Amino acid sequence: MKAYQELSKEELLSLKSELEAAYKDAKGKNLKLDMSRGKPAESQLDISMGIMDILNSESNMKSESGLDVRNYGLLDGIPEAKQLMADIMGVRASNVIICGNASLSIMYDTVSRSMTHGVMGSTPWCKLDKVKFLCPAPGYDRHFAITEHFGIEMITVPMSSTGPDMDMVEKLVAGDDSIKGIWCVPKYSNPQGYTYSDETVKRFAALKPAAKDFRIFWDNAYAIHHLYEDRQDEILELLSECEKAGNPDMVYEFCSTSKVSFAGAGIAAVAASQANLDFMRKSMTIQTIGYDKVNQLRHVRYYRNIDGLKEHMKKHAGLMRPKFEAVLNMLDSQLGGLGIGEWTKPNGGYFISFESLEGCAKAIVAKCKEAGVVLTGAGASYPYGIDPKDTNIRIAPSFPTPDEMAMATDLFVLCVKLVSVEKLLERM
Amino acid sequence: MKAYQELSKEELLSLKSELEAAYKDAKGKNLKLDMSRGKPAESQLDISMGIMDILNSESNMKSESGLDVRNYGLLDGIPEAKQLMADIMGVRASNVIICGNASLSIMYDTVSRSMTHGVMGSTPWCKLDKVKFLCPAPGYDRHFAITEHFGIEMITVPMSSTGPDMDMVEKLVAGDDSIKGIWCVPKYSNPQGYTYSDETVKRFAALKPAAKDFRIFWDNAYAIHHLYEDRQDEILELLSECEKAGNPDMVYEFCSTSKVSFAGAGIAAVAASQANLDFMRKSMTIQTIGYDKVNQLRHVRYYRNIDGLKEHMKKHAGLMRPKFEAVLNMLDSQLGGLGIGEWTKPNGGYFISFESLEGCAKAIVAKCKEAGVVLTGAGASYPYGIDPKDTNIRIAPSFPTPDEMAMATDLFVLCVKLVSVEKLLERM
Repeated sequence: MKAYQELSKEELLSLKSELEAAYKDAKGKNLKLDMSRGKPAESQLDISMGIMDILNSESNMKSESGLDVRNYGLLDGIPEAKQLMADIMGVRASNVIICGNASLSIMYDTVSRSMTHGVMGSTPWCKLDKVKFLCPAPGYDRHFAITEHFGIEMITVPMSSTGPDMDMVEKLVAGDDSIKGIWCVPKYSNPQGYTYSDETVKRFAALKPAAKDFRIFWDNAYAIHHLYEDRQDEILELLSECEKAGNPDMVYEFCSTSKVSFAGAGIAAVAASQANLDFMRKSMTIQTIGYDKVNQLRHVRYYRNIDGLKEHMKKHAGLMRPKFEAVLNMLDSQLGGLGIGEWTKPNGGYFISFESLEGCAKAIVAKCKEAGVVLTGAGASYPYGIDPKDTNIRIAPSFPTPDEMAMATDLFVLCVKLVSVEKLLERM
Repeated sequence: MKAYQELSKEELLSLKSELEAAYKDAKGKNLKLDMSRGKPAESQLDISMGIMDILNSESNMKSESGLDVRNYGLLDGIPEAKQLMADIMGVRASNVIICGNASLSIMYDTVSRSMTHGVMGSTPWCKLDKVKFLCPAPGYDRHFAITEHFGIEMITVPMSSTGPDMDMVEKLVAGDDSIKGIWCVPKYSNPQGYTYSDETVKRFAALKPAAKDFRIFWDNAYAIHHLYEDRQDEILELLSECEKAGNPDMVYEFCSTSKVSFAGAGIAAVAASQANLDFMRKSMTIQTIGYDKVNQLRHVRYYRNIDGLKEHMKKHAGLMRPKFEAVLNMLDSQLGGLGIGEWTKPNGGYFISFESLEGCAKAIVAKCKEAGVVLTGAGASYPYGIDPKDTNIRIAPSFPTPDEMAMATDLFVLCVKLVSVEKLLERM
């Protein structure tokens, strides 16, 4: 196939008419599909329904600590849940606190607490003139929403397939003590599905931040969310790397079972150094009388251990893989060689990241929406919702069925072509 | 019986020897009892075990809204849970948001959000030189812990059997715009078991605070927690009273099922005006991807409606009443007429409040602890943990068995007598 850039104006104009006709047809199909969020499909929720039977009215409701999980106590989680979540992250159980049903809330609470109470004795961030976060982008829109909500200035750091631009990260954190954090999805990153290289992780661990209260917000959301059995990314464990590098307190790691059991009713955890956890616990004793330990017990009794989790994740992979492949195959076959887009081919996680020609992403998303397919808003993967080149589109294949996914991708491809042709004509 | 105040020095000295001997004996019993917190007994947790069966792997997991509760969505709660919690509080479901497993966390989040983002457009409290809260006392120590944690100055307001001293409340809030809130447990108050009178509620609704962002934190923790069927306190519903008085936005009301189902795994709710709820939801969309809706559905399916809840609460009352009566009977029979203590006789809630002679509470609690009975720390029911007269002791009868309760009260009575005798001798 010929790249669009090589087409003459006449060829582009004739192609445009064809595409417009096809788009008109597509609109006539009255699609109503949602690829906007990393939302599990019903089939994925169904494979965890056994968790609803694992505790019943005859169950022993005692944690292995002897504590009745139905009552108050064990503010920071039952030991067996700490072990399970520690094994997901590859850390020691003693470095883990179990919280509520979502890791996003732990991240929010962590930023919020830093605003009002500082970090392990530092000045509360709300008392500072300026607080900044580094935001590798494209990244997770909800991370950026938290920092924006608290008036924290966001500095975009470019992403590559090995992780954020570490030259830039090292230089910025060393030179500016108002930089207090960096958002990372280190494994199967949102939205690109990239996994940070060992070198990147080691450089993170060895950072020399000017701010003592600088922290890496390491959102290990997709730690065990592989798509393939024979192609799995692995990542160095940052907490122990930070210890080795003499920076034991520099990282908070987050994870949850939101995409293991139920998206709204999982358990979430944070891992950090003892000093960090002690500081968190001081606030936690004020903030809560304890999180839901019945749900913690339910998860441990059902998944048993990390091996049980891994077995379970194979079922998720079996459901997700065909959807990813439906998208990727269509992108390959219909856009390959046209020079109007590039896309990632992740080994895990929840997203495919698409890069259009410059200045096309918003228009593509709008055209898709007009024809009934909702994508994540263009720009959402950048701080303040502004993608400087207007190229990034996040594709979330999890929620629709494979058939719907194919229909949606068909439309997506059409919109990419149409908008690209329009853009190329504009430039002529 | 003769009041201790009427005894001669010789009589007191001889009584002191007797009591000391008895105390020595009591210590020999090696008691190990905990009356420190309002913690449900195992028997109370057992009566809710049916809730563990109500959802199983065959269950329809759709809320009546049609939403799958296992997935993302419905950030502010499923409609049937809103209705259930609304009925506990006597408000409209549209005025309710369902959150996580504990109302304390909602209160914490509400104060925390006010610190960082103000209240419906007001200046964030962390940017103000001074923020104050009124604290009717004796009151709930965890309320005071939240305000202290955020550096909010606490002003003690005396409690009576009809509620806080409203003359003082009215005068203070009208005259000082740094007063931003007041903590209330309006029904079966913690620790006295008092219920605010209709007049008190109406005066609350008609407050004319100098601060536009002043809010009443109305912790209706014991709304349906009666001890008797024939003696039940009722309270005017504040939200609608505030509407009538032209102050619709002045109140946040909180409640939970922590002492209905499980202390660590219930559901919690906040009720407020639409304007307040809209402001909360704006933060909530950043803070969380949603609370645990499976647990919301579990609660509604199990308790069905307010009538189901009321039936269930009769079972709790049946378990709690004998413990309250064990304490009250012993206090009556052994301390009645001695002039060394007064105590409340609540119709519901979780606590009995005891008032010792001035300067005795700490010593009584310490003596009990020395002999193996842990009470809530003396002073805990006052801001900053300082009971100015050192008289208030909170008794929490829920956790021990009735037999244990009797043993514990026996020791308590002994300690009250001994410390009182010592105090009276000191004054001679």
